[in-house]
Amino acid sequence: MVTSHSAAAARSQRAASRRRGPVLEHAILEATLEQLSTVGWSGLTMEGVAVGAQTGKAAVYRRWPSKEDLVVEALRSALPTMDEVPDHGSVREDLYQLCRRVREAMYSKPGFALRSVIHECDSETSERFQGLILSGVIEPSQRLLCEVVKRGVERGDVRADAPGELVFDVIPAMMMYRSKVCGSEWTDGEIAEMVDLVMVPLLRP
Amino acid sequence: MVTSHSAAAARSQRAASRRRGPVLEHAILEATLEQLSTVGWSGLTMEGVAVGAQTGKAAVYRRWPSKEDLVVEALRSALPTMDEVPDHGSVREDLYQLCRRVREAMYSKPGFALRSVIHECDSETSERFQGLILSGVIEPSQRLLCEVVKRGVERGDVRADAPGELVFDVIPAMMMYRSKVCGSEWTDGEIAEMVDLVMVPLLRP
Repeated sequence: MVTSHSAAAARSQRAASRRRGPVLEHAILEATLEQLSTVGWSGLTMEGVAVGAQTGKAAVYRRWPSKEDLVVEALRSALPTMDEVPDHGSVREDLYQLCRRVREAMYSKPGFALRSVIHECDSETSERFQGLILSGVIEPSQRLLCEVVKRGVERGDVRADAPGELVFDVIPAMMMYRSKVCGSEWTDGEIAEMVDLVMVPLLRP
Repeated sequence: MVTSHSAAAARSQRAASRRRGPVLEHAILEATLEQLSTVGWSGLTMEGVAVGAQTGKAAVYRRWPSKEDLVVEALRSALPTMDEVPDHGSVREDLYQLCRRVREAMYSKPGFALRSVIHECDSETSERFQGLILSGVIEPSQRLLCEVVKRGVERGDVRADAPGELVFDVIPAMMMYRSKVCGSEWTDGEIAEMVDLVMVPLLRP
């Protein structure tokens, strides 16, 4: 007797066989993000991802040997990229636009998933995801922040001795803290306030 | 036949009967912290706490109807209190001493236990413990910070328009962020750097 389960598996296998490598990989990574947002890290299984991507479990394991590898790759590939911040003529405006980018990354689907994964998984696994937050969100935004501040020094609206590691940490620290502790959603108004009341006084000559 | 288990229980009951309310309560709360630091939130049981406090399970349940109530009380009662910050003559020195207090609370036994509990328990329970971080650590340190900054305005080493909610968030945000993301342990040197490179430039007239 063909059960509905094995019928579904057979359909999945047929669907998988029709797709090329990168297309199938994309479907698996999409299904992983989908699972993360519905059942979370604890509920996510390789089998569930395979079903979601309409493929077999072996097709998933062949590419990613563990759940952790799979989730890291799904998150990394989906995080918004942080490219240049155009020169808006003042450090105030440049910082405002930059913070909006950081907010976009924080509140993107993979951004949410990444934070919830860190809360759910044990501390050893969590380290790998913290590394991903660092390389995928924090370092790119720090790099942009550094550019914006150095541009301000050249322009003359930032004092020359302002740039430094601790100063570059203020924006990500505030954004993480107030979203966690105060439940802030970082509206445009709150971003402008942070720039005007904290960053501009801190940086000005 | 008297088993060793019931003999131990009988001894516990006798020990409990010799102790007055507050003394017994203190023993139960101490045993709770001890359990948290050894077996964590998931491993902690009312029975384990009762054994640790050499009392009966009923004595624990009579005072705290759930594990959650018990743990909240144990953490609350053990967190270091944040009293006044004496006037050290400058906002720089006042802030430095205040940050050392915050660090002490963060890295105290109940401070560590509180953070690990938040990571271990489910999100509904976790909210209650986040409330405890807010009322037991963050709000008291914000209150002191506010006093220190207002004292600086009166003294003249802080500009009058500096005090504000966002400015008061900078120190707790930086302390949380850098301990979580950069693994900083906030040595005295790092605290001094934060005060000199971030807070003093941000607050100065």
